[in-house]
Amino acid sequence: MTEELENHHMTPEEFRRWGRAAVDWVADYYERVESLPVLSTVQPGEIRARLPAAPPLQGESFEAMLADLDRIVLPGITHWQSPNFFAFFPANTSGPSILADLICAGLGVQGMLWLTSPACTEIETHVLDWVVDMLGLPARFKSGGAGGGVIQDSASSASLCALLAARERASGGAVNARGGTGRLVAYCSTQTHSSVQKAAMIAGIGRDNVRAIEVDAAFAMRPAALREAIERDRAAGLTPFFVCATVGTTSSTAIDPVPEVAAICREHGLWLHVDAAMAGTAALCPELRYIHAGVDQADSYCFNPHKWMFTNFDCDCFYVADRQALVNALSILPEYLRNTATETGTVIDYRDWQVPLGRRFRALKLWFVIRWYGVEGLRHHVRRHVELAQQLRVWIEQDPDFELAAPAPLNLVCFRHRGGDAVNERLLAELNASGALYLTHTRLDDRYTLRLCVGQSQTEARHVRAAWERIRTAAG
Amino acid sequence: MTEELENHHMTPEEFRRWGRAAVDWVADYYERVESLPVLSTVQPGEIRARLPAAPPLQGESFEAMLADLDRIVLPGITHWQSPNFFAFFPANTSGPSILADLICAGLGVQGMLWLTSPACTEIETHVLDWVVDMLGLPARFKSGGAGGGVIQDSASSASLCALLAARERASGGAVNARGGTGRLVAYCSTQTHSSVQKAAMIAGIGRDNVRAIEVDAAFAMRPAALREAIERDRAAGLTPFFVCATVGTTSSTAIDPVPEVAAICREHGLWLHVDAAMAGTAALCPELRYIHAGVDQADSYCFNPHKWMFTNFDCDCFYVADRQALVNALSILPEYLRNTATETGTVIDYRDWQVPLGRRFRALKLWFVIRWYGVEGLRHHVRRHVELAQQLRVWIEQDPDFELAAPAPLNLVCFRHRGGDAVNERLLAELNASGALYLTHTRLDDRYTLRLCVGQSQTEARHVRAAWERIRTAAG
Repeated sequence: MTEELENHHMTPEEFRRWGRAAVDWVADYYERVESLPVLSTVQPGEIRARLPAAPPLQGESFEAMLADLDRIVLPGITHWQSPNFFAFFPANTSGPSILADLICAGLGVQGMLWLTSPACTEIETHVLDWVVDMLGLPARFKSGGAGGGVIQDSASSASLCALLAARERASGGAVNARGGTGRLVAYCSTQTHSSVQKAAMIAGIGRDNVRAIEVDAAFAMRPAALREAIERDRAAGLTPFFVCATVGTTSSTAIDPVPEVAAICREHGLWLHVDAAMAGTAALCPELRYIHAGVDQADSYCFNPHKWMFTNFDCDCFYVADRQALVNALSILPEYLRNTATETGTVIDYRDWQVPLGRRFRALKLWFVIRWYGVEGLRHHVRRHVELAQQLRVWIEQDPDFELAAPAPLNLVCFRHRGGDAVNERLLAELNASGALYLTHTRLDDRYTLRLCVGQSQTEARHVRAAWERIRTAAG
Repeated sequence: MTEELENHHMTPEEFRRWGRAAVDWVADYYERVESLPVLSTVQPGEIRARLPAAPPLQGESFEAMLADLDRIVLPGITHWQSPNFFAFFPANTSGPSILADLICAGLGVQGMLWLTSPACTEIETHVLDWVVDMLGLPARFKSGGAGGGVIQDSASSASLCALLAARERASGGAVNARGGTGRLVAYCSTQTHSSVQKAAMIAGIGRDNVRAIEVDAAFAMRPAALREAIERDRAAGLTPFFVCATVGTTSSTAIDPVPEVAAICREHGLWLHVDAAMAGTAALCPELRYIHAGVDQADSYCFNPHKWMFTNFDCDCFYVADRQALVNALSILPEYLRNTATETGTVIDYRDWQVPLGRRFRALKLWFVIRWYGVEGLRHHVRRHVELAQQLRVWIEQDPDFELAAPAPLNLVCFRHRGGDAVNERLLAELNASGALYLTHTRLDDRYTLRLCVGQSQTEARHVRAAWERIRTAAG
């Protein structure tokens, strides 16, 4: 067989043949994923033990690789695409997204400069403008004015870029030039995603210069506490510069009071970043757009279509109201990247909007997803997920053995058995070991809390119902 | 047609059908890419103008999207996968890599923790150990001891992570905790990739605290100048902490004298990072392994299979000799990520080895590429590229109108017409406008210099010969 020859590029004919086989493998996977244990049951080292100690000297057949997907890979997969995946936040996907990623890999372009593939940049700019309208975000995030959007790999990277742009603005470029001073202070809440603390470490702000503001009974940031912290730091001669507010916290989808937080930021001249990584997608539905109240006052915003909008990882939409601060924070122009399009300033070079230089054509999958479903199609599925989660919330409220642990405004329900931490820990371990579903936990009010998030593309009413029945049964 | 219904997920049957169509589109693309103008000829705004102002409310057919690939996307593509692409460094790819990325998108797993897909982590660890042997890298970079490898999106991110680990070690964790001081100093050469300066800005080290050490006639770092700079900074009360040496600079594939640089780093206790982003792949061939002399003394090292090893972007292999410094720099563990596997310390959680939290199953494509070609197959193609570049070097040396601008140890040839900057600038513009090939430029010895890099997967002798003939003809 030709494909077993060494030194041999895959021909277009072979690519057609093995491409069909790979497409079929993926289609088969989706047909059976529901029957597989959601959380992988392998022990540490078990997958490695199945791999040969040395790489092959001669090439192998593609058939052998496909066979190893079943033999070696699948047992070690935790199935994020199972309709019984309710853990963390979803990282859902869809057919049009997967196929767009295939085409992205096939084109193999670098979008670091406009010039190195204009379509990669222009479709990204255009689709990110679409998304502003789709989510009812403020027009200041569109590319026509001073702002604009860019695809980042993750909300972590978006937080980092927001922090860097804020640092640039607050220090007038001094930190970029001469390094950190340990005098800048950032604010988030006790419920903010750990990526803000990580970003502060990376950016040389320092973990100790991140204030975790206390939250109210609904786990939302207390604006009065934020104001006090800022004033205390100012009085101590420090420089407050950055606030991250969250729309839909990771623990419980709490929604920080962005309008109040924004007013404080404006008063004190702080950069406001709003992280709506998972929850942002809900704003596709006009009736859920209230979650974005106050975002029109934010300096930057992000949400992840790779969480709940059927677009596979990585795809975080990051917006800034003033792109110049971001570009100033990240721009460098060595001779080998110089070109006329860049120098006339008529184009966007997204390399200056992100940490890495290189970038894939990620807009392709977002474009395909929006077109395949249409805005109404996306809304339909989001509404369905919210409805299913709300049904679960009602069941929990009605069950004497369980209680809600936090408000459930969208598609995440936090709850616990009334028996205490040990019972809930055992419950989680037993449920996940069953392979029938996958839940994760958090701590709220210092109590062990189960989280069930409805957001996987294929999750239907029967999956949520079966999950709840299994939870009740396991609780005995 | 079912796929035109709104609210409709693509069924496995539709996925098979449109998957075949997408595979065929990619195969067709590779069959015709050689005939397309390499550098896109569109004007700024031209692609956007073809897109509807508003997103579709109702879903569209996949057929319409495929048609738009030809109608809208292709004119705006600069063809990195054309055999006539000689610009920058290559970002080459191959059939097994593209299909592995399809499967990666299909599985849609998150590898942030071992637990969230053990195969994603273990195959990555294992294949990165393979690569250590394949490139003859030091065993200290293997996962069995204190070191280990991880896939980053790019060499830029690898540089940043190396800088952060070095900062952690040099400051004993103080910068992570309390922020930058503006007293740490990093060193590279005048030829080092701009990502090191960008990383220093991001990490709060400061652009002004990066010393660009002068180079010798071959554009390699002068160790004596490095030593002087370190001693000068020490005398000034600053803290030298990080050196980036390059194996194969972006401008001219110059190779810094790593053994001498390493000795200076050891003497002064500095972290040595070696960036071999493009050139590292050459070390697949034992006769080219001399490029890695001294790397056994490095604290960290990276090269990009997504440049010259047939693995599509993003895939940078980043190694550290002491993984603890890296993990200390980047680790955070909120409650919602806690799990037994992590807490017993028996597994790797790659989220602590990188800036983002989420991560794709990128090891899959590297594994598939190594298996498809075998080590011997990869060597064959690398040798062929080097041979073609060396043939071009000889032609240039023999042509009275042209001269080499730098040594050409591997697959990049830097040269210029003897007519001066204006002639070379015109030559580049004319050649690229022809669509027949794509070259880029740099400045060496303050003179405008053309760069021709042989590394695209499909480039054969006839493409290099045709390129040289066209260059000579254009020079007229």
